[in-house]
Amino acid sequence: MADTVKDEKELMSTPVGVVRDPAFFRKVKGVEVLTETEAVAIDRQNRKVTLQNTAGGDSSVIEYDALILATGSSPVIPPLEGCALPGIITVKSIEDAILLKEQAVSGNLACVVGAGLIGLETAEALAERGMQVTVVELCNQVLPGILDDEMANLLEQHIKSKGIKVMTSCRVTGFAGTGRVEQVITDQGEVSTDLVVLAIGARPNVDLARVAGLAIGETGAIAVDDRLRTSDPAIYACGDCCETVNLVTGAPLNAPLGSTANKQGRVAGINATGGDATFAGVLGTAILKAFDFNAGKTGLTEVAARAAGYTVETVLSASPDRAHFYPAAQPIALKLVADATTGRLLGLQAVGPGAVDKRLDAAATAITFRATVEQVSHLDLAYAPPFSAAMDNLIVAADILKNKLAGHARGISPRQVKRMLDEGDDFVLLDVRSPAEHAAMRLAGANLVPLGALREKLDSLPRDKEIVTFCKISLRGYEAQKILNAAGFSRVRFMDGGILTWPYGVETEHNA
Amino acid sequence: MADTVKDEKELMSTPVGVVRDPAFFRKVKGVEVLTETEAVAIDRQNRKVTLQNTAGGDSSVIEYDALILATGSSPVIPPLEGCALPGIITVKSIEDAILLKEQAVSGNLACVVGAGLIGLETAEALAERGMQVTVVELCNQVLPGILDDEMANLLEQHIKSKGIKVMTSCRVTGFAGTGRVEQVITDQGEVSTDLVVLAIGARPNVDLARVAGLAIGETGAIAVDDRLRTSDPAIYACGDCCETVNLVTGAPLNAPLGSTANKQGRVAGINATGGDATFAGVLGTAILKAFDFNAGKTGLTEVAARAAGYTVETVLSASPDRAHFYPAAQPIALKLVADATTGRLLGLQAVGPGAVDKRLDAAATAITFRATVEQVSHLDLAYAPPFSAAMDNLIVAADILKNKLAGHARGISPRQVKRMLDEGDDFVLLDVRSPAEHAAMRLAGANLVPLGALREKLDSLPRDKEIVTFCKISLRGYEAQKILNAAGFSRVRFMDGGILTWPYGVETEHNA
Repeated sequence: MADTVKDEKELMSTPVGVVRDPAFFRKVKGVEVLTETEAVAIDRQNRKVTLQNTAGGDSSVIEYDALILATGSSPVIPPLEGCALPGIITVKSIEDAILLKEQAVSGNLACVVGAGLIGLETAEALAERGMQVTVVELCNQVLPGILDDEMANLLEQHIKSKGIKVMTSCRVTGFAGTGRVEQVITDQGEVSTDLVVLAIGARPNVDLARVAGLAIGETGAIAVDDRLRTSDPAIYACGDCCETVNLVTGAPLNAPLGSTANKQGRVAGINATGGDATFAGVLGTAILKAFDFNAGKTGLTEVAARAAGYTVETVLSASPDRAHFYPAAQPIALKLVADATTGRLLGLQAVGPGAVDKRLDAAATAITFRATVEQVSHLDLAYAPPFSAAMDNLIVAADILKNKLAGHARGISPRQVKRMLDEGDDFVLLDVRSPAEHAAMRLAGANLVPLGALREKLDSLPRDKEIVTFCKISLRGYEAQKILNAAGFSRVRFMDGGILTWPYGVETEHNA
Repeated sequence: MADTVKDEKELMSTPVGVVRDPAFFRKVKGVEVLTETEAVAIDRQNRKVTLQNTAGGDSSVIEYDALILATGSSPVIPPLEGCALPGIITVKSIEDAILLKEQAVSGNLACVVGAGLIGLETAEALAERGMQVTVVELCNQVLPGILDDEMANLLEQHIKSKGIKVMTSCRVTGFAGTGRVEQVITDQGEVSTDLVVLAIGARPNVDLARVAGLAIGETGAIAVDDRLRTSDPAIYACGDCCETVNLVTGAPLNAPLGSTANKQGRVAGINATGGDATFAGVLGTAILKAFDFNAGKTGLTEVAARAAGYTVETVLSASPDRAHFYPAAQPIALKLVADATTGRLLGLQAVGPGAVDKRLDAAATAITFRATVEQVSHLDLAYAPPFSAAMDNLIVAADILKNKLAGHARGISPRQVKRMLDEGDDFVLLDVRSPAEHAAMRLAGANLVPLGALREKLDSLPRDKEIVTFCKISLRGYEAQKILNAAGFSRVRFMDGGILTWPYGVETEHNA
């Protein structure tokens, strides 16, 4: 969020500006908060915790009836040469953010290692403070695990358009510098820098629990049941340090996120004080604002769904986030992932300058209740032109996916089209937009036959080759497929999402 | 939307600017559109429709295998004296909007009859064109049927702050003028005006269906089954002219809205062409932008839920729509309505300058799947500070409602507090905010005891009187209730929503 928050105290305050310090907790909540105090050992048999003042001094012991572990997580520091050099920092606490702010000198170079949520948010913040930023990512895309590659490519293009250099499929092997970091060493060469931010993930803080003999789950986080009880019924865990469940697959998952931690804190608190509350799990919902782009997902990506064994159908769909005639309308691209066997919605990814959060929230709710794509397509969402089109983006995408699941619509992903173009496959790439749209922006290798002229020009198209149709958002692309199918062309597919979701560069009036 | 759309052709266009005229339908869709043609009779036995050119000339007959009625609705014209005077118009078609634009002369007076969605949207549009606007509404609030009164009052206050005069509980008895409307006659006196817009609702156009002997439902719209088939299996109906079902209550409902019409059109089209699609019903979701305020609902209002026989629990909750430290954050007020017996969420109302649409869509999805308040409170919604607080407004509201349903939290509505104040009840209205907040804005008759000082000042409070606590949003109000309960005060309630949702006027530094 760049320099959006002027005073870090705001981050510790309630919405009405009350700073949540120990005095606040004592006076308002009747809760004693011991700061600068580390819990160093748990004596489960006698229900005691040993405390150590971090400023030194004697240790002390407190007793408990119920204990809640909320030990959080820590940024992963890779075991690489030079990692301890000054100028290499992580971002986790408010103190980290203050340090980052001090070191972010306008005009200097910065290198962010890791293109996940924290990495990209930090890259934006540094760029907006005037630094020249390079992001280095081991995977072949930004936001790995959150977006499938074609959606990630759209985000990456936007980030690059803002002057950020993005190096994907790039392995960092060490850091070098005299007295302070000066180079990031990678398998794609050295990156000169004045500042390095490590953002390669977080690891749950489980040492206290592990030494106390509590069960640690396969994700490396503290194992808990649906009441957030650990393997010791007097001890609960919540937040980044504990495991939860993926509501779609049922698999254990460590999903460190403030929204989850808040909900879990409530559940652990209720249960530790004699109540009975449950926490069923999460969908791995995540969202990011990066410059003028928003990006997020809920549920499973296509990659995750296939890995979990689902037979998958997907759709890419791009359209304005409000009635298209409404001036504030901005495009967003959605990717829905469904179980082709049951028609159940498994996941949504959403990117673009428009309101992606609203569609993610509706989809997260639908996925929670195991909605089918058919059910999503009939949701009675709030419609007026300042808020959405009469058919909301989510509903349009669900309708296209229904057409695919029923076999009416035959799509092909931009990724596959790119591969066919790169490999020189013999097929017809058919742009069915208007001549004006084609002149302004087009795909290399595409033939133009505007949709309105298609019925008259059927004879000009080969019947023995595959035809891939597309338009701006692939509404006309789909209509072209139907017209061609009706005319006896059998090998026709439309390109999912149209040119709006083509993430590989286009020819324009300027660059052609 | 005021003058937001510059060219009415945009309203008839696809998102890429293709005007959907008869030539478009012929060339692209292979569909013949007969304009200026009225269907005047259906011969169901012989499956024929008689057509009449509206410009005159001979009638003609076409045959059908399947027939779809999409006859829409018409604005209700009240049977009042002077109703036909020039200068009295309705708003339904694009032509109406063009006429309205011509007659909206800056500086002139306008009177809008009806404070529903269309009435308020029109009032905003006329005010933004410089007219002095009065809205006259028969009910005792704006948006009757869409908002409960306390939520409607918040919207009404905003509309009034923009210079619109709002007259509620006001019956129009006629119109007067020489050659053109000059007065609206009401039971609260005459309203001088240069222009009248009638916006008292729409009536489904069912004459064609009724004369053909098709069943008309109890709502006055064409009766259809869940495949949108009328009582004649060869005839379908969709859109404003037909009935649908309220998904919460199961009751029939005529809900004329573009989003519903779009979905139904798809279902009717699929079924009429041999496919099999169903349309289950709607939640009566509605949304409005009025100046800088958004307002909407999904599911049942409190009034509707009680009328349907539910035992109801509700909550009012106001908070910023994003992380409170994020500069773009804007407050919104939510009202949740739940079935107290089952804990099921029945409805959400949302008003305020912030993003109400997102919460409505998530709630609409949850209500569709018969979610409980407990389930809503654990939804894995998309969180990052630019999009929401860690605990989204919807989740906070659900948590408070859970506390109420469990008996932990005891709320009282602003409406009840106002009544107690007006009737001079002997109770303590306890403002637990800070002195600075109290100085800036306060409720007449309230005593100030900041929350942090409450534990020390218990002796100053009477144990024999009812105490009503409140703060800005009633988080502290609830905490005060808990502190007082723990200290043995038994007759304590917190005021739902706090001063942010108090819709009856406050004392400020300026008006005290």
